[in-house]
Amino acid sequence: MNANPKFIASEAQVDNAAVAPLPASRKVYVEGSRADIRVPMREVSQTDTPATFGAAEKNPPVYVYDTSGPYTDPAAKIDIRSGLAPLREAWIEERGDTEKLAGPTSRYGQERLADAKLAELRFNLKRNPRRAKAGANVTQMHYARRGLVTPEMEYIAIRENLQRREYLERMRTAGPMGQRMADLLGRQHRGESFGASIPEEVTAEFVRSEVARGRAIIPANVNHPESEPMIIGRNFLVKINANIGNSALTSSIAEEVDKMTWSIRWGGDTVMDLSTGKHIHETREWIVRNSPVPIGTVPIYQALEKVDGKAEDLTWEIFRDTLIEQAEQGVDYFTIHAGVRLPYIPMTANRMTGIVSRGGSIMAKWCLSHHKESFLYERFEEICDIMKAYDVSFSLGDGLRPGSIYDANDEAQLAELKTLGELTTIAWKHDVQVMIEGPGHVPMQLIKENMELELEQCHEAPFYTLGPLTTDIAPGYDHITSGIGAAQIGWYGTAMLCYVTPKEHLGLPDKDDVKDGIITYKIAAHAADLAKGHPGAQIRDNALSKARFEFRWDDQFNLGLDPDKAKQFHDETLPQEGAKLAHFCSMCGPHFCSMKITQDVRDFAAKHGVAEADALKKGMEVKAVEFVKSGGEVYRKA
Amino acid sequence: MNANPKFIASEAQVDNAAVAPLPASRKVYVEGSRADIRVPMREVSQTDTPATFGAAEKNPPVYVYDTSGPYTDPAAKIDIRSGLAPLREAWIEERGDTEKLAGPTSRYGQERLADAKLAELRFNLKRNPRRAKAGANVTQMHYARRGLVTPEMEYIAIRENLQRREYLERMRTAGPMGQRMADLLGRQHRGESFGASIPEEVTAEFVRSEVARGRAIIPANVNHPESEPMIIGRNFLVKINANIGNSALTSSIAEEVDKMTWSIRWGGDTVMDLSTGKHIHETREWIVRNSPVPIGTVPIYQALEKVDGKAEDLTWEIFRDTLIEQAEQGVDYFTIHAGVRLPYIPMTANRMTGIVSRGGSIMAKWCLSHHKESFLYERFEEICDIMKAYDVSFSLGDGLRPGSIYDANDEAQLAELKTLGELTTIAWKHDVQVMIEGPGHVPMQLIKENMELELEQCHEAPFYTLGPLTTDIAPGYDHITSGIGAAQIGWYGTAMLCYVTPKEHLGLPDKDDVKDGIITYKIAAHAADLAKGHPGAQIRDNALSKARFEFRWDDQFNLGLDPDKAKQFHDETLPQEGAKLAHFCSMCGPHFCSMKITQDVRDFAAKHGVAEADALKKGMEVKAVEFVKSGGEVYRKA
Repeated sequence: MNANPKFIASEAQVDNAAVAPLPASRKVYVEGSRADIRVPMREVSQTDTPATFGAAEKNPPVYVYDTSGPYTDPAAKIDIRSGLAPLREAWIEERGDTEKLAGPTSRYGQERLADAKLAELRFNLKRNPRRAKAGANVTQMHYARRGLVTPEMEYIAIRENLQRREYLERMRTAGPMGQRMADLLGRQHRGESFGASIPEEVTAEFVRSEVARGRAIIPANVNHPESEPMIIGRNFLVKINANIGNSALTSSIAEEVDKMTWSIRWGGDTVMDLSTGKHIHETREWIVRNSPVPIGTVPIYQALEKVDGKAEDLTWEIFRDTLIEQAEQGVDYFTIHAGVRLPYIPMTANRMTGIVSRGGSIMAKWCLSHHKESFLYERFEEICDIMKAYDVSFSLGDGLRPGSIYDANDEAQLAELKTLGELTTIAWKHDVQVMIEGPGHVPMQLIKENMELELEQCHEAPFYTLGPLTTDIAPGYDHITSGIGAAQIGWYGTAMLCYVTPKEHLGLPDKDDVKDGIITYKIAAHAADLAKGHPGAQIRDNALSKARFEFRWDDQFNLGLDPDKAKQFHDETLPQEGAKLAHFCSMCGPHFCSMKITQDVRDFAAKHGVAEADALKKGMEVKAVEFVKSGGEVYRKA
Repeated sequence: MNANPKFIASEAQVDNAAVAPLPASRKVYVEGSRADIRVPMREVSQTDTPATFGAAEKNPPVYVYDTSGPYTDPAAKIDIRSGLAPLREAWIEERGDTEKLAGPTSRYGQERLADAKLAELRFNLKRNPRRAKAGANVTQMHYARRGLVTPEMEYIAIRENLQRREYLERMRTAGPMGQRMADLLGRQHRGESFGASIPEEVTAEFVRSEVARGRAIIPANVNHPESEPMIIGRNFLVKINANIGNSALTSSIAEEVDKMTWSIRWGGDTVMDLSTGKHIHETREWIVRNSPVPIGTVPIYQALEKVDGKAEDLTWEIFRDTLIEQAEQGVDYFTIHAGVRLPYIPMTANRMTGIVSRGGSIMAKWCLSHHKESFLYERFEEICDIMKAYDVSFSLGDGLRPGSIYDANDEAQLAELKTLGELTTIAWKHDVQVMIEGPGHVPMQLIKENMELELEQCHEAPFYTLGPLTTDIAPGYDHITSGIGAAQIGWYGTAMLCYVTPKEHLGLPDKDDVKDGIITYKIAAHAADLAKGHPGAQIRDNALSKARFEFRWDDQFNLGLDPDKAKQFHDETLPQEGAKLAHFCSMCGPHFCSMKITQDVRDFAAKHGVAEADALKKGMEVKAVEFVKSGGEVYRKA
């Protein structure tokens, strides 16, 4: 259990582990059509191919998607007491459709601000919240539908392309070896995207059109100007979400901020703050002000705290105040379980594990206690009015998702999904952005049905799933049981995968668990991108495999998702620095290496040329004179 | 790096970590038609459902497949210096088709035995090797084709059924709650098996017929009578293999025996000894004598050691002597890369990562050096003659498997696969058992093609794949990149999955890595069984989910694949013993628990009955009087 040292705002500092650049990595910014569109990427440099591999080749730097924000930029001044720079502020301001408020308009927000006892915990926000002017709609969907390409959209287009074209173009023009390199490093297998429409290159106009038709969302609250725009949609790179949050039992504000910076360092595209303990409001402020990625929450958790955990005491007024409170802090998307309708609740009675969603069970209890339809369902249009005043996106919660293989794809789950589709149509009427949450626990053969039903019934709104876990029998390893399902559903079309950590079902994740969860989900998301045939997805695999084949150990580590662990694992067997220059590895040792023997084959083919190789293929006799003459010696000196 | 303390045979002892029974587990033996057919299973007992969950239910013990051999049987006397009891000895003897030899007949085996310097390392085997009598064929396939149901086949049938029928039957007859329990715990989703023919219940005759037609193999060398019979085939439970083995750089005999006992403790169905260092022969003897699971090897590794690592110096005579040496020690299956034909070698020249199989690259070098067709291919029938004299199964090696996503499903790989199909036909002519090795590195959308081509071109011989890894970008996490692919290809029909550890590509696995690899692959195999709809596969998921829902924490841990880790993770957040009796968990704390709220729903439905629940579903108004009357109080005292 954590010691929970007292958190003091004036002494808060960033976790050192989250700010060092990754090895051989440099933060670069690609500029857009205006100077304030500066899109970050991580440039991973490589060493040259040793001349022993036939030719000394210059291996170009690889650009990878970078979610880590200014933390990994040595030029940025990081002070979590001041928060990040509000990079979208000018864009929001320019649109002229928002106004600065005099202060928080939620009752709760005002109370917390007035509470002197909280001064020590409070983030020192000098900026007042912003809201749409009367009658205005400030969602990215609204702009998109009016044909407006926002700076956010242009930013996203640049970000999604990852300089792929430039990377290959630079090689092709780099001399005689260039074309070969570009072919080798740029080639990719044909994908199977199950009906997705992924363009060769993402344009700002494509981003706009996808947002306009609801197939993608840009979670970007006007009160979170610190966020670096990103997109969630089936025709873009698959994204992942990391959950953090304290509970009644453990964890402090500082720990949660640390988990956020840690999550984005390893690739979290969004972060959900699921706090349920004390100081939810203050914790959230610290997280949002310091987060370059969109933040999601489940407002009903906090609403429940406000009624001392008694679900039946929840009211629309308390919930509404909570939405406004959080929207004015800058939360980018809200999970709202508006699909948990009264008639569906008895459908869960014969389940193995009932209702496992916390939000779902809160609403179920409320509905049963009052014997009334859910106020979230009945007040949905009022909720839309709040969402569009701040551009908060819906993440329509799957409160009836299955909590076990037994309950997968059952009547309750599918009834709710259909309702989420109806709600999507209502939200879109208000130009409010929507994604749909999905399960849960699903055996592999039933995963595809989830995706197909979601696309059909929710009109291609982006799907955002928790795993799914493909078996229940491995507590302690549910990052893996669910990573298997996540890769598959990502392939089938899910736009964002909510991570599961090894502690799922057992306890609260610590930083190691968060990292294990993130890396597992980066793997799942990338495997999905590859399988869908996302253009350029294979570039990183190709570069890493070339480094591996050429025994460029450090390059292999650095191009991986977790350079630290790769290096550590290598060094456990071969700790000497020289071993990382050696042309062999610990698996076989210096006298027995398949990679080296392969090089012979290549040399042989090169020496004997295409004609002879073709003859060989046909089974004809060809004398391998030169090869035999050279004594068959293949082991080069390291 | 390992310290490698000197190994002294007379002091060797079993690793303590491998012999304690797992928590709440008891080794039981199910007797077959004769007293010496005693099939081990692990019986995991459970606590009763607390009365607070509506009714105090007796949760029956669950039977799980047990690969750990006598090590986890407190009644067994374990002394690794004596090896395990030869449980199949009488069955082999009875068949009357083998003879005891005067000693090893391989030249190398004789030399090692005569070498006094090795006395200190040597396992003290008092039994002479056995071989088929002149003209006899002692393979399980041969018996199967002659219509003979061997004790091995009966043993396997009992083992595969896992007492499923008895488990459910006992519940049904256990009183009024029994039928409900049997329905809840026995229900399973319909599978998608892609054309497999999995019977409701496995009979010995079914085992025989599958072996006869080559769709399954029973690796069971007559010189490995210690092994507990198991089967590898698409219509049986998906199996996993763990690789162990020292290299030139590290690891000792004691460590390898430890890794073997550790592997089978966590679920390894077979173990491959891939040693390449010194004392391969002696290490193997220790492993085989103490292994209750089939042992596989790659004989070319040892043959290469015998010619000091010079592939071009390999000869058929040396290889042949190695096969006999290992067959007489009791190796159950040999990986033989007879599909790496001379004409295919140039096809690898333009690969990203060439030939990554060690065996494949050795043979490629031999072929190139001599400019001759592979002696493994040319002497294949002679190899079959050796295999059938001891009942060693072929694992036809995929020497040209892809070593990167880039190289997946390429010309070289698929050319070799076709040849493996031709060789299968030849082996079957000799009634020699065959499985086919498969890749490797394959993106998800290309995995199915591998399975389909294998089934078609290799005539449904069991497929045995290494992963496949679904991306190259995560060194340090390749148990996960490959677990994703393994689950999928297992679902599509692969019979055995060769594990990959986190150290893949980086270093030699230690015991933690072995365990991580095994658990990941047990997950993949089980997820595949569930997806195929293997009868009874969901029993363990259902039992564990019921325990989870009822807050039977210890039962949840104990039914999992790794009770130790589950408990450890739980205790990190809530270390008190009382917390394991608590009706809440660390994720939400005592005042906020979705599982508890669900129980309300269930109580509500029970109180109000079917009619009212149906009315609710139809959206009618029904007064929830009793629920409201009870004050909506749901939190029971822990």
